[in-house]
Amino acid sequence: MDLRRREFTALLLGGTAALGLVGQADAESDPLPSWNAGPAKDGIVKFVHATTDAASPDFVPAAERIATFDQDGTLWVEHPIYTQIVFAFSRVPAVVKERPELANDEAFKTVLSGDREAIGKLSMDQLLSVVGATLTGMDVETYRNEVEAWIKQARDQRWNRLYTELVYQPQIELLNYLRANGYRTFIVTGGGQDFVRAYAEPVYGIPPEQVVGTMFGLSFKPGADGKPVLVRDPKLLLNDDNAGKPEGIHLVIGRRPQFAFGNSGGDREMLEYVTAGAGARLGMIVLHDDAKREYAYGPAQGLPDTKVGTFPQSLYDQAMKEGWIVVSMKTDWKRIFAFE
Amino acid sequence: MDLRRREFTALLLGGTAALGLVGQADAESDPLPSWNAGPAKDGIVKFVHATTDAASPDFVPAAERIATFDQDGTLWVEHPIYTQIVFAFSRVPAVVKERPELANDEAFKTVLSGDREAIGKLSMDQLLSVVGATLTGMDVETYRNEVEAWIKQARDQRWNRLYTELVYQPQIELLNYLRANGYRTFIVTGGGQDFVRAYAEPVYGIPPEQVVGTMFGLSFKPGADGKPVLVRDPKLLLNDDNAGKPEGIHLVIGRRPQFAFGNSGGDREMLEYVTAGAGARLGMIVLHDDAKREYAYGPAQGLPDTKVGTFPQSLYDQAMKEGWIVVSMKTDWKRIFAFE
Repeated sequence: MDLRRREFTALLLGGTAALGLVGQADAESDPLPSWNAGPAKDGIVKFVHATTDAASPDFVPAAERIATFDQDGTLWVEHPIYTQIVFAFSRVPAVVKERPELANDEAFKTVLSGDREAIGKLSMDQLLSVVGATLTGMDVETYRNEVEAWIKQARDQRWNRLYTELVYQPQIELLNYLRANGYRTFIVTGGGQDFVRAYAEPVYGIPPEQVVGTMFGLSFKPGADGKPVLVRDPKLLLNDDNAGKPEGIHLVIGRRPQFAFGNSGGDREMLEYVTAGAGARLGMIVLHDDAKREYAYGPAQGLPDTKVGTFPQSLYDQAMKEGWIVVSMKTDWKRIFAFE
Repeated sequence: MDLRRREFTALLLGGTAALGLVGQADAESDPLPSWNAGPAKDGIVKFVHATTDAASPDFVPAAERIATFDQDGTLWVEHPIYTQIVFAFSRVPAVVKERPELANDEAFKTVLSGDREAIGKLSMDQLLSVVGATLTGMDVETYRNEVEAWIKQARDQRWNRLYTELVYQPQIELLNYLRANGYRTFIVTGGGQDFVRAYAEPVYGIPPEQVVGTMFGLSFKPGADGKPVLVRDPKLLLNDDNAGKPEGIHLVIGRRPQFAFGNSGGDREMLEYVTAGAGARLGMIVLHDDAKREYAYGPAQGLPDTKVGTFPQSLYDQAMKEGWIVVSMKTDWKRIFAFE
């Protein structure tokens, strides 16, 4: 684990090293070098000082310093389709071979056709039925190995980069900055808990027990060698989106976090729950408004709406009212990816 | 939290301090002074050395050192009735006042009668219906405060001690010894997750996020002041007993632990799951065979069976076959409680 993590970190930070000594000195004095100066960066630094300075009225003991991050669209690219769905699609041919009746299912038929336009029109329920049929039925350790093997070579089509390279460098710096100040950083994702756990440690420095996600039921039974394993059931146990996010936070963490970062309507309840707590709390939201360097989507500020990561106007209005910081990719992030 | 924890620790360790300098020196050289020399103590020390010595073939990196403990009957007294049930009973009069129709329910009527013999005959399903009606319907923070207030003054009848004083001193030493060797210690209990979280930190040094327990659903809704809260639903989400224990471990921890300690048939699957992993794994079971200092129960070795903490002969036989260590309270534990 540690070795792989170091390798990944080296990969992610490679760009910085290339800047030479001056760049390094900057990085040392500024923990958030990929953030432009402005209210978002200021808000982060002020929050961290307020909650970690023992003399501050908003001081939070180290054990209670919890920060939660949505993943898709908040820590890495979610457009044009969630990476986990791409993984599910990659398994469709093998699953249909084992269960030929699925070839007549509309969703499976569409995925097998390879017709991108038709695939783009599948409903979220159809996508979830594909996920349910392709990502369950095996034991949790086999599943983890399969995700690990896939994600080491699967590439996004726009950049021709590994999906794990499409993490936002400003957020990697923010995770490190929070951890350097005693915060424990959790992912709270609508994606599958076990999917994200398979790569969260090397990619984000976040261990499996700090990943809260959509949970499937598990069956305890003897494996191939007779030794007991946990088999992934298609039965949904917790849909970790919307109100499911605060629920998942309570079940796994059991404390109300001090800090939450999201990017869509699915993060609204997490932001509400976190910022309703006493003392200093900070809610932040990524606004995808940079079509050139990443994507621009969501009706807030007149951007087009899409199937993933909807950022409705009502969330924007609520953010203004509640004092949640809306982060513009275009103006607040100096650099988006480590490879830039 | 830290302050309270120090106070509790002082309370728990008070007995040792009274022994004076010689006792202290012993405690310093022996991390498990309340354990008698023998195979159980040896097994623990060997396991810890094997998994933490970097030169050992069974070395486990610090991040993967996870130890899981059942609570009732493993970390504290569960006899004659689980403490959480006593708490639920204490709330019955108030709940019946609010919902008078419950006075006609057989289980509630029996609890209200105060007839101990009749209460002792209630089935586990009846007990769970009382728990469901008395320990849900409030928000999680209110519930936590109520458990905290109750457990600070509620006393067991045999010893007239706080329930939190009825923790086993050898196990407190074992938790500390494991943590001193880089292990993270989790409770994995059939009891309510939020019940145990309310006192696990001061009593065991175990923070809320390291308590896995029986989970109820949660509803996210506005509280009395309009701010959002999580309300405890009567709907059972995970019964963290038997096969539910490995399931809860995977959902909350996401790693297969190296070490598990239980005391009853409800811990069997956790022990199976943990010890089926590769490398050095250790399973341990408390046998309650000391009627004088604590209790003697369970059919294994001819002791009487009881409603709580059943230790069937089949579990004993399986332990012998699998190499799980059966700990005799009578012969392996020099001291059971800190107040002795």
